[in-house]
Amino acid sequence: MTGINRRKLFGLGAAGVAAAGAGVLATRNLVEGPPPAAAASTSDPVGFYGEHQAGIVTPAQDRLHFVAFDVVTKNRAELIDMLQEWTAAAARMTQGKDAGTFGAVGGHPEAPPDDTGEALGLPASGLTLTIGFGPSLFDGRFGLAAKKPAALADLPHFPGDALIPDISGGDICVQACAHDPQVAVHAIRNLARIGFGKVSVRWTQLGFGRTSSTSRAQATPRNLMGFKDGTANVKLEDAAMLRDHVWVAPGDGPEWMAGGSYLVTRKIRMNIETWDRTSLNEQEVIFGRDKGAGAPLGKKAEFDEPDFAAKGPDGEPAIAMEAHIRLAHPTTHNGARLLRRGYNYVDGSDGLGRLDAGLFFIAYQRDPRTHFVPIQRELARKDVLNEYIKHVSSGLFACPPGLRDAGDYWGRTLFA
Amino acid sequence: MTGINRRKLFGLGAAGVAAAGAGVLATRNLVEGPPPAAAASTSDPVGFYGEHQAGIVTPAQDRLHFVAFDVVTKNRAELIDMLQEWTAAAARMTQGKDAGTFGAVGGHPEAPPDDTGEALGLPASGLTLTIGFGPSLFDGRFGLAAKKPAALADLPHFPGDALIPDISGGDICVQACAHDPQVAVHAIRNLARIGFGKVSVRWTQLGFGRTSSTSRAQATPRNLMGFKDGTANVKLEDAAMLRDHVWVAPGDGPEWMAGGSYLVTRKIRMNIETWDRTSLNEQEVIFGRDKGAGAPLGKKAEFDEPDFAAKGPDGEPAIAMEAHIRLAHPTTHNGARLLRRGYNYVDGSDGLGRLDAGLFFIAYQRDPRTHFVPIQRELARKDVLNEYIKHVSSGLFACPPGLRDAGDYWGRTLFA
Repeated sequence: MTGINRRKLFGLGAAGVAAAGAGVLATRNLVEGPPPAAAASTSDPVGFYGEHQAGIVTPAQDRLHFVAFDVVTKNRAELIDMLQEWTAAAARMTQGKDAGTFGAVGGHPEAPPDDTGEALGLPASGLTLTIGFGPSLFDGRFGLAAKKPAALADLPHFPGDALIPDISGGDICVQACAHDPQVAVHAIRNLARIGFGKVSVRWTQLGFGRTSSTSRAQATPRNLMGFKDGTANVKLEDAAMLRDHVWVAPGDGPEWMAGGSYLVTRKIRMNIETWDRTSLNEQEVIFGRDKGAGAPLGKKAEFDEPDFAAKGPDGEPAIAMEAHIRLAHPTTHNGARLLRRGYNYVDGSDGLGRLDAGLFFIAYQRDPRTHFVPIQRELARKDVLNEYIKHVSSGLFACPPGLRDAGDYWGRTLFA
Repeated sequence: MTGINRRKLFGLGAAGVAAAGAGVLATRNLVEGPPPAAAASTSDPVGFYGEHQAGIVTPAQDRLHFVAFDVVTKNRAELIDMLQEWTAAAARMTQGKDAGTFGAVGGHPEAPPDDTGEALGLPASGLTLTIGFGPSLFDGRFGLAAKKPAALADLPHFPGDALIPDISGGDICVQACAHDPQVAVHAIRNLARIGFGKVSVRWTQLGFGRTSSTSRAQATPRNLMGFKDGTANVKLEDAAMLRDHVWVAPGDGPEWMAGGSYLVTRKIRMNIETWDRTSLNEQEVIFGRDKGAGAPLGKKAEFDEPDFAAKGPDGEPAIAMEAHIRLAHPTTHNGARLLRRGYNYVDGSDGLGRLDAGLFFIAYQRDPRTHFVPIQRELARKDVLNEYIKHVSSGLFACPPGLRDAGDYWGRTLFA
């Protein structure tokens, strides 16, 4: 601190603030009225209320900021209060408004602003905020033990897992997806700000590019191995698949989760440099698809159904027995399907001259015990990709159903 | 490794590869003919050749991937060969093409692909690649000691510096800017791939949102403190300022730098949580601007000139004596100006429940000794912002002039 008199600082500029605040509100409040269920352009808002939370089947936005919090308060009422505050801020931010009324809290310039300001002037950018509750929240601190769904059982250890506890788990997660990363970062930061003293950031992950499509209207993007990813993903247009594989049905477990979904996150570091020195042919055999068009081997186009019985000219299976698409395919798992919406990440370099990069895997499902767990068990045992990847973080969260209206709040069905 | 016979894998899918490769080339090669000096849309290419390197005055793109390499080869000829390979790949990638001819090296499917593939199908996205040479490259290993510019003297230690050596310095840097982060990441990764065995990644930085405008056609963005940043930045339309403050003139030092510019990078971590609990009034007094419109205190609009002599109603200076805009203003530094093009970053959390976030500061100038150094010395000594920020990484690089044509290469003027 230099010699500046901080007390003196306070008297200045209040008129300018009031004028500026009004202008700013005009910008951020342009978006009014009920927004469409899915954004028409990348700057439009996505609706916040509905039967299910947004950010699950919502056409995957381009950027991600994901956070897992530890709850530090021991007071159940304080936690509920915070969730209500979060809900109000989330309802505003997803519609392109500030977390609070821009300016000082209660209109007082000597209080901290109730929005951090870096998204002022930016449109809603398709922001969705999706909340989930981790197994550790049900440990008895908040009287929730009896409400823990059986489906929220800790994931088993998989062969090859190299999980780092500090970037795994968490009591509460929020997934922010948007087309503008500044909007996604702003949203998580403001929730952390509002939760100060009640929750603490356990870990976060920024994702710069989506690796899945959740709508038939979207082109299939590429992961950092250069392959199209999520060709066979569950899409929002597949109502029967969503019902069977994504949404929790009444009777599946505790009623508070009906209409919700279980979220599994896995941070999958890629050994980029080794992969990049692997032959094109081997890369394609490992995936079971060609790298350019994304067609299953032996087929012509990306969306052609793979033919797992077909033989190549040498009499061997056209798609190797341990190719990734065979191991992960629904036919290998009694039809089980995941709704994936992962993101590419780069976290700098690792001090050994290599990029610290890979896939932040995100999957939603009706029950991890019948979906993610058996699929990952198969992949962890047999997938040749395991030579090039390492799972370093894992998360499991119960995402409750959507909110009915502005009187509802995140967690009401759980805490009621 | 499982029981799969990797030798067997190689025979499959070659026909599919050839067909896919052709399709892919058609996509990535749509961009032909001389591109405009500045991209007309965010998907268009920016020209690679010219008097100056692109990526300096080019209207600041939205996303950044910055890398600093250590040179690990001791062989000068090998280093020059790599720079030539890099140049060819950069010329292709900035025009929306692959780093090489997609497919296998030399057309052979049993060799690694000469492009990693994750940008297939994506447009040029305004990609610029800007190279710079750090002071350590001139240490004698490559016979360059006599060519080291005096302006490339190591930066002094500034009060409060908390620099981490592992993420500072470097022999060679490349700044990749693009409107699509996947394109910027792809470009750096492919340079690292090409440089394997000759250079090693020392550190990298992803930036998700620009914090400066380098053209009058751009709106001023906000940094993570929520303030508009770079209002008074040097813009590409200011030819006289570019000449006086950004481009190295013949006679300024060694001839190989004429037409180049010196780059200073500083990773400035922000204590986000403390800032967010500071009153709006204090935040504005510290910056000397109002947070909403970005106007200098006592003025109405963002681009109004600050009046450093004006007094407020209490008889104190309307802009505090130690306000950031006063300390950094050209009038405080004999008119010295920087061309800034920094980026907001979030690198996850810090294990203490706080976001690891801030500003990756990037500034270009004719001579750091007359520009960055005196400005930073003033700020390091007096700026009240120092309570909320910490400089954790520093880089200094000599960025040579632009390339004449496809026969030219990065570093020719230095190594010739």
